[in-house]
Amino acid sequence: MRTREPLPLTAVTIDDRFWAPRRELIRTRTLRHQEGQMRRPGQQFDALTLTWRPGDPHEPHIFWESDVAKWIEAASHCLATTDDPELDQAVDEAIELLAGAQQDDGYLNVYFTVVKPGQRFTDLRDAHELYCAGHLVEAGVAHFEATGKTRLLDIVRRYADLIDTVFSPDGPCAGGYDGHQEIELALVKLYRATGERRYLDLSRRLIDWRGQQPFYFEVELQRRGTPGYFGTRLPQRPEDARRFREYNQSHQPVADQAEVVGHSVRAMYMYSAMTDLAGEYDDDRLLQALQRLWTSLTTKKLYITGGAGSDPSIEGFGPDYDLPDAHGYAETCASVGLVQWAQRMSNLTGRGHYIDTLERALYNGVLSGASADGTHYFYGNPLASDGTVARQEWFGCACCPPNLARLIGELGRYVYAQGPDEAVINLYVAGTGRFTLTGGEVTLRQETRYPQDGHLAVTVTPTDDEAEFTLAIRIPGWSRQPTITVNGEPVDQPVLRDGYLTLSRRWRTGDLVEIDLDMEVRRTWAHPAVASAAGKVALERGPVVFCLEGVDHDCAVHTLTLTRDTRIHAVPDERTGVATLHADATTDATADGQLYGNRPPGRRSVTLTAVPYFSWGNRGLSGMTVWIRDGGLGAVPAGTASNSEHVESSNGRG
Amino acid sequence: MRTREPLPLTAVTIDDRFWAPRRELIRTRTLRHQEGQMRRPGQQFDALTLTWRPGDPHEPHIFWESDVAKWIEAASHCLATTDDPELDQAVDEAIELLAGAQQDDGYLNVYFTVVKPGQRFTDLRDAHELYCAGHLVEAGVAHFEATGKTRLLDIVRRYADLIDTVFSPDGPCAGGYDGHQEIELALVKLYRATGERRYLDLSRRLIDWRGQQPFYFEVELQRRGTPGYFGTRLPQRPEDARRFREYNQSHQPVADQAEVVGHSVRAMYMYSAMTDLAGEYDDDRLLQALQRLWTSLTTKKLYITGGAGSDPSIEGFGPDYDLPDAHGYAETCASVGLVQWAQRMSNLTGRGHYIDTLERALYNGVLSGASADGTHYFYGNPLASDGTVARQEWFGCACCPPNLARLIGELGRYVYAQGPDEAVINLYVAGTGRFTLTGGEVTLRQETRYPQDGHLAVTVTPTDDEAEFTLAIRIPGWSRQPTITVNGEPVDQPVLRDGYLTLSRRWRTGDLVEIDLDMEVRRTWAHPAVASAAGKVALERGPVVFCLEGVDHDCAVHTLTLTRDTRIHAVPDERTGVATLHADATTDATADGQLYGNRPPGRRSVTLTAVPYFSWGNRGLSGMTVWIRDGGLGAVPAGTASNSEHVESSNGRG
Repeated sequence: MRTREPLPLTAVTIDDRFWAPRRELIRTRTLRHQEGQMRRPGQQFDALTLTWRPGDPHEPHIFWESDVAKWIEAASHCLATTDDPELDQAVDEAIELLAGAQQDDGYLNVYFTVVKPGQRFTDLRDAHELYCAGHLVEAGVAHFEATGKTRLLDIVRRYADLIDTVFSPDGPCAGGYDGHQEIELALVKLYRATGERRYLDLSRRLIDWRGQQPFYFEVELQRRGTPGYFGTRLPQRPEDARRFREYNQSHQPVADQAEVVGHSVRAMYMYSAMTDLAGEYDDDRLLQALQRLWTSLTTKKLYITGGAGSDPSIEGFGPDYDLPDAHGYAETCASVGLVQWAQRMSNLTGRGHYIDTLERALYNGVLSGASADGTHYFYGNPLASDGTVARQEWFGCACCPPNLARLIGELGRYVYAQGPDEAVINLYVAGTGRFTLTGGEVTLRQETRYPQDGHLAVTVTPTDDEAEFTLAIRIPGWSRQPTITVNGEPVDQPVLRDGYLTLSRRWRTGDLVEIDLDMEVRRTWAHPAVASAAGKVALERGPVVFCLEGVDHDCAVHTLTLTRDTRIHAVPDERTGVATLHADATTDATADGQLYGNRPPGRRSVTLTAVPYFSWGNRGLSGMTVWIRDGGLGAVPAGTASNSEHVESSNGRG
Repeated sequence: MRTREPLPLTAVTIDDRFWAPRRELIRTRTLRHQEGQMRRPGQQFDALTLTWRPGDPHEPHIFWESDVAKWIEAASHCLATTDDPELDQAVDEAIELLAGAQQDDGYLNVYFTVVKPGQRFTDLRDAHELYCAGHLVEAGVAHFEATGKTRLLDIVRRYADLIDTVFSPDGPCAGGYDGHQEIELALVKLYRATGERRYLDLSRRLIDWRGQQPFYFEVELQRRGTPGYFGTRLPQRPEDARRFREYNQSHQPVADQAEVVGHSVRAMYMYSAMTDLAGEYDDDRLLQALQRLWTSLTTKKLYITGGAGSDPSIEGFGPDYDLPDAHGYAETCASVGLVQWAQRMSNLTGRGHYIDTLERALYNGVLSGASADGTHYFYGNPLASDGTVARQEWFGCACCPPNLARLIGELGRYVYAQGPDEAVINLYVAGTGRFTLTGGEVTLRQETRYPQDGHLAVTVTPTDDEAEFTLAIRIPGWSRQPTITVNGEPVDQPVLRDGYLTLSRRWRTGDLVEIDLDMEVRRTWAHPAVASAAGKVALERGPVVFCLEGVDHDCAVHTLTLTRDTRIHAVPDERTGVATLHADATTDATADGQLYGNRPPGRRSVTLTAVPYFSWGNRGLSGMTVWIRDGGLGAVPAGTASNSEHVESSNGRG
C-alpha cells in the first residue's frame, strides 16, 4: 500500500526566498539559543553527567533527554545540507554525554538512573520514558542519515534492543505501551535505517497492545501501588476513567478509534505511527481507522490555522466544533505532529488534499510558534489576543522550540515524494530535488516566489538527458483555476487526479512546466457550530491565513467589521515574505465611558490591515484576531440582502 | 458621614413570592445539605475535635473554620425570623465543637493547632488564618443578633482579643494584615454589636498597615525562611512582585488605590471594610478612594451579570474591559461581596445608583450560583457555555455555597435602610419593615410581584397613627418613566433625588404609595472595548439579565441573531418567577459538513427564547449565551442603515 516515499534530505536543496532564510535562522540562531538554554548549570547537559544526587538543586526532569534529542535531530537536518563544523562538534559533544549516560545494558534515561533508580518502566503512563527513548531513536537515525556517523545510531540501537526485550510478548512489560506516544514512529524509522525488522514489529506490538483490556496503565498503577509522576493531576475516580484513558488514546484498540480525542501531540504522533504501520503491513483496517480519525479532525476539530487541540486543561481536543480563539490552545508541537501525519497519509494514499492540510498547519500554526528572530516561542497559538500575550524565551517543558526547529530543518523531506515511476512535488519551494526512478535519475528545479505569488516554474533535468516518468505537481484545493503550460504551450485539458496535475511523458533536459495558482484573497467562514467564529469571517490567500493586529489600527481589532462586497487589496510585503491586505472597514465608535448602555454603538470608517497570522506578535504587545466581524453585504437595497448566501465575495488580487 | 443603616433582620419580614421560597429553600434544603457535607467523616466537623494526627487521612484544611462559620451565620439569619428547633440545635452543636477547639488563650484554628502547631500567625499571606477568624466573628455576631445567645459571641470575642494583642502596634505582628481580607469588616460588626471600640481600631490598623513599605508579606517570608502554604503558586521573582502584591491588594496603601485589581473576593471584602471605616472615622480620603475603585469596577471590570473578576488564573480581575464569556470567571462569592460593598456605599452616601449595581449582582451573578433545588452550585458563573458546564454538589474549597446561603438568609438587611428621619426602601420585596425614627416607630408594608412586573404598593403604618418623616423609595436607573401615586392621586412633580423618590410629609396610618416601573425589555450593548460582546446585544428586563439556552432552540445559541427592530414579547413564567422572552430571529443554516468554506452561511428563521440568566442550567446540560448576535436593523432600505446608532430599539412589554 505504501505508494510514495519522501526524498532524503541529502537529495534536496532549498534556495527559496521564503524558506531558506528561515532554515538558516534555525541553524545560526535558534539552535545556538536552544543549546545555550540546555547548557545552563543544572540543566539538560549537566544532567547527562549523572552527577545529580538527592538534595541537590535542579533535579533532572523526566523530559530532558527529549529536548537534547530533538535538538540533535534538528541540528542533524541542518548538517545534512550545510557544512557547519561548530554545530557538528556541539552535536558530537552532546552525543558523548549521551554515551556516558548510557548504562551497561543499554538503558539511557537520567531520571530513572539518578532520581528514581530501580523504578525503570514502572510508570509508563506518566514518566515519559519511552517518549524520551523515541526521540533519542529519531535523533540517532537523523544523525546517521545526515552525517554517516554511527555513534548515536549505535547508542540508540542498544537502547532499542533493551526495550525490545522488556516489551517482548513474554517480557516484564508485555502488553504495555507509552503514556506519551512517540517511540512507535521512531521505531519505524529505525527499522528503515537499519533494515532490522524487529524494530518494526516492536512498534506494531506497542500500537496493537494499546487500548486492549485490562487497560495496561490501570494494571501498572495497581502493581506499583503509588500514584504516577503526574498522579494528582490525572483523575483516578472510576467515573473519570474514560476521560483519563482518552487523554493518551488508550481508551480502545487503535484500529477501532473514530474520534480524535485527548492530548493532541500524543494523538498526532500515534496517528503518524499508525500510518507508517498501515503501509508497512498493508493493513487496510488501520487505514480505515486513520481515515475516520482524519475526518474527525479536519471536519470538526481543527483550527483554521492548522492548530490541533483546543482545551488547555488537557493540552488536547475538546468536543466537536469547540475551537475557542483567545482561550484555546493549538500547541505548536501538535501542528508539527499534524504535518508529520498529513505527509504520511498523502504518501500512503497518493492524495493531495492531505497536503492542503499540511500546508495549513505549516504556514500558520507551526510558523507562528517562533518569533521572526527565531529566539522566542509560543507554546499555545491562540487565534485572538487581548494584547497581553507574547512569545517566551524558553519553557520549563521545552518541547515546542526544538520541535519547530527540527521540522523546518527537515523541510526538504516534505517538498517532494517519489514512487517507482513518478516524481512528486508537494510543496512549492524554490530549489532542487533529485529523484531515483525506475526510468533513471532526474532532477527537478523549482523557481517560485510562493507564497507571495502563485507562479511556479519547474525545470526537468534527467541525468541521461531523457527519462519517461510521471511528473505529479500538487494543485492546492483552494486554487480554483490554475493556468498550466508545458514548454510555453497551454495545457488545455490538464489531468488533475487526486489533487495533482499529472503529466506522464518522456521528459527531456530543459523541459519546463509552469503553473499559475489563483492567489485571490479568500473570505472563509467556519461551520456554524464554531462559536468563536459565528458571525465572523477569516481572510486567506494561498496557504496563508491572515489576522488583524492592534499595532496596525487605532481601534481594538475585535471591533473591526468587514462587509462582504468590499474590495481587498493585497500588497507584497518583504517583512513577512507574503503580503499585507488592506480594505475599507468600519469600527465601533465609543459613545461614552459607560460599560453598558441602551444605545447601539455608532460606526466610523477605518482602513483594515491584515498580516499573515504566523507573523503576529513581532511588533510589540498588540491585540490580534483571526476571525473578523462579518458585516454582511453592507448598505445595499433590502431585496438583495436576503440573497447573501448566494453571493460570491469580491476580492482584490495581489 | 454614616447617613443610613440597615434595619436589623428581626425588624423585617419577607413574604415575597420571588424571595420567600428561595429563603425557605436555603433553610430547609441548602443548609441541611451543607451540614451533611461538613459532617462527613474527616471533614469540617470532625476536624474541630482536634483528634487528627500526622499521617491520618483528611488533613484539616486551612479554610475549614470559614465553612463552618458561614454556615452558622446563614443558619442564624434564618433563625432570626423563623422558628426551627432542629436547625437551632445543629448550630448549637457546631458552636460547642468550636468551643472545644478553642485554646486556653482564645486561639481558634484547627490547622495551626494540630497540623502546624507552633506556627501561628507566621503565614498570614497564604494560610487564611485571619480570614477564618473573620468569618467566626461574623458568625458570632449574627448568632447573637438572631438568637440573643452569647455563647459564640463570647468565643469569638476571646479570639478577637488575642488577635488585638498580637496585632497591637507593639505586638509580634505589628504592621501585619490578612492575606485574604475578611476580618476587617467582621471587626466592625463586632464593634457595633459589643460597643468595644478596640475592635474598630484593630480593623482600622489592619487596613492602614496594608500596602505600607516594607511590604509585610515580604518581611514575613524572609523572617520565616520557607515558602508559604501556596508558595509554589505565587511567584517570588522580583519582576512578578507587583502582580503578587496586587493579588491581595497590598501593592499600595489602600487610600491611594484607584484601580480594582487582584483576587476579586479579597477586593470586595476589603472595600466593604473600607466603606465601614470611612463612615465610622468620617474619613473623606478613604471615601474618595472607594469612589475611584467603584468607578474602576463599574465602568471597566464588571460583567453585565454583576460578576466581578474575569481571570480564572487569579480568581480575580483582568485588564480593563477584559470580560471573556465562556472562559471568564465571575465567582459567586465575588458577587456576594459586591452586594455587601454596594449596600455600604449606598448607606454611606445616600445614593441609589449603588443599589442598581447591587440588584445587578443579586438577581443575576449571585442567584445563578445555586440550582433551582438549592443543592448544586457554580463557583464561577460564565456568560456563555458550550453545553458541558454544570453546577456541582460541593467543592474542595467550598466558599461559595455557604456564602450564597448567608446572603439570601440575610436578605432582609438589604431591603430597607433608615436614617434619623427617613425610612428607605432599597429593594422591592413584599413584606414589612419596622423603622425606629426620630418621629416615632413606623411599619412599611410592600406589596409587589417584582421582578415579574413593576408594580409596587407601599402602605404606611405609624405606631402612633401619625409620624412626620421622609419616605425614600429607590427608583432604579433603568426605569425611565415611573408612574407614582399617593393615596391614588398622581404625583405630577415627584422629587427624585440621588436615585430615590423622596416623599417628606406627615404620614398617617393607611397612607398608600404606588409606583409602576417601566418594565419594557431593554436591549443593552457593551462598551466597544469588550471583545466578548462586540457585535452582540444583551436583553434585560427590570433587574434581570436574560440568556439563551440550547434546550429552548434547535440550533446552537451562538448562531441566533436578533435584529434591532424586532418586537420582543415577555410572557410571565412561574418556573423562574420572572418572564420568558420570545422574538423572531434567524440562525445560521448549515450548508455542508465542511469545517471551513468560502460561501457565507445561509440564514433561516427561528423563534428566539430568552430566560433569566440566574435560571440557566436547571434543565440538563445545554449551551448558553448572554450576549446575542446583533443583526442591526434587518432588511431595511440602505439609507436608513447608516442611522442605526440613533434608532431606539422597539420592545415588547411583559
